[in-house]
Amino acid sequence: MYIGIDLGGTNIAAGLVDENGKILYSESAPTLKERHYTEIIADMAKLAKKVADGGGVRLSDIKAVGIGSPGTIDNAEGRVVYSNNIVMHNVPMAEIFQKYIDLPVNIENDANAAAYGEYYACGEKCPSFVFMTLGTGVGGGIIIDGKIYRGFNGAGAEIGHASIVHNGKLCTCGKRGCLEAYASVSALISQTKEKMKKCPDSLMNKYAEENGGVSGKTAFDCADSGDNAAVEVRDKYIMYVAEGVSNLINIFQPELFVIGGGISRRGDVLLDPIRKYAAANDFNKYMPKTKIRAAKLFGDAGIVGAAMAAAN
Amino acid sequence: MYIGIDLGGTNIAAGLVDENGKILYSESAPTLKERHYTEIIADMAKLAKKVADGGGVRLSDIKAVGIGSPGTIDNAEGRVVYSNNIVMHNVPMAEIFQKYIDLPVNIENDANAAAYGEYYACGEKCPSFVFMTLGTGVGGGIIIDGKIYRGFNGAGAEIGHASIVHNGKLCTCGKRGCLEAYASVSALISQTKEKMKKCPDSLMNKYAEENGGVSGKTAFDCADSGDNAAVEVRDKYIMYVAEGVSNLINIFQPELFVIGGGISRRGDVLLDPIRKYAAANDFNKYMPKTKIRAAKLFGDAGIVGAAMAAAN
Repeated sequence: MYIGIDLGGTNIAAGLVDENGKILYSESAPTLKERHYTEIIADMAKLAKKVADGGGVRLSDIKAVGIGSPGTIDNAEGRVVYSNNIVMHNVPMAEIFQKYIDLPVNIENDANAAAYGEYYACGEKCPSFVFMTLGTGVGGGIIIDGKIYRGFNGAGAEIGHASIVHNGKLCTCGKRGCLEAYASVSALISQTKEKMKKCPDSLMNKYAEENGGVSGKTAFDCADSGDNAAVEVRDKYIMYVAEGVSNLINIFQPELFVIGGGISRRGDVLLDPIRKYAAANDFNKYMPKTKIRAAKLFGDAGIVGAAMAAAN
Repeated sequence: MYIGIDLGGTNIAAGLVDENGKILYSESAPTLKERHYTEIIADMAKLAKKVADGGGVRLSDIKAVGIGSPGTIDNAEGRVVYSNNIVMHNVPMAEIFQKYIDLPVNIENDANAAAYGEYYACGEKCPSFVFMTLGTGVGGGIIIDGKIYRGFNGAGAEIGHASIVHNGKLCTCGKRGCLEAYASVSALISQTKEKMKKCPDSLMNKYAEENGGVSGKTAFDCADSGDNAAVEVRDKYIMYVAEGVSNLINIFQPELFVIGGGISRRGDVLLDPIRKYAAANDFNKYMPKTKIRAAKLFGDAGIVGAAMAAAN
């Protein structure tokens, strides 16, 4: 039995997870990220005890605790090297956590943990797996031969920060033209707003007014209703995502490519054009092709992945 | 002792290679690529015998033969799935070769073999290594934990076919905006010609006339002589290469990034601006940084890499 903890900017989520990656019991608590990290870590430990209790398991039955944390992680040292979301610099997270619960602790970057969770959930032990999550940013993870790929310094797999437009839009990371600057939900919202200004008669304006502002849903929902301007925004946005997917397929030729984030619930509306673009632009013409699928676990991916990474 | 064979579009090069990746004796012969592949493979075997003889070694002292071949390779089957440079489709290359020389044969894609050779030559057993070679195309290879990364289908590591310009220039592969369409030497030649037309007074026009036409050297040599138009071409070209390097660093965070191809002999003129761009655009701000270096083996990388891949 394992405990997986997903440390997010808004909530800490923890789950009791069995050997097969199934969540048996879970709880969450607000992160209150402005607090000092020591208080946050203390709450993570409290939550871990709570899910063990809730699942009717003693801490001594837990083999290890896995944590998915934002930022650059030194996995070997159990240290958060740097995170700007929840402010941490050189924090010995495992050591602090172990003052409360004396169990083996494994820390992964949160996107890597989510990738590992989706890898587990796909039920295939494929030799190469790429996960891309579309949210405020574009995150991701790469699993090779069943292992999280971290790069030599633990900072690898930042697939959202490979550019798709040389000298393009400035990304929050400081680089220009990053996939994240075009294919994140934040980028979609900007693209939607831009189009709404140009097309004041578009349904999107009315929709946004009625739904408390522009969101990642605006263009997709209005496109579903047949609004032309919305269709344009949606289809152009999907092509940005597809470019990122296609690039990573030519680099990795993974057996499975999973796309996550709330927007992936759109299913084939999102995925079919991506599959078509990736197939047309795949350098590999003669060998089996990468399968492209939507995520299965969504919010639970971090818990499952953190727990399973701790298990392995 | 091993034999490494580098099957190129112009020449077949073979070498007797020791356990440490040192070439003891080498020979080459024209590929005459319009011939049927069976004749080419027969010549590869002849050349292998020749280098064993030349190195004073019996075939029975050779542990394995490694071949680097263009195209998509099925490594497990020893088969060239597809190559359009030397026309081969589903060719059981290992099996045919073994009719002449009955030794274990390992076949790799030529760029992967070259990458492995450079990995060996760097003398460090770094956990992650990326090689990019600038030639007619942009090829490359990825070595993770000492193993050539091939993707699940053997067609991976086509780093030249990740785009850096969404909807950009059409690449020979059919995709638009590929790194290869901007950062290959062929692309540099196009960029040089374009500038020469716009700037008839540029030294590049005179230089090309005196040197039998435009080549990858035109812009670099004329820039060395202080020609402004040439400096512009060179510097813009280097930024395309740098974009590709920077993207791969954010994805892989490799310990070592090696750039090959004849142009990498320019050394720091090429590498310093790339290092500067990659550092400025590295998502990793707090952990050790990727080292960027020029290739060491050049033409020998394929032989050494093929032999060492066969050894391991």
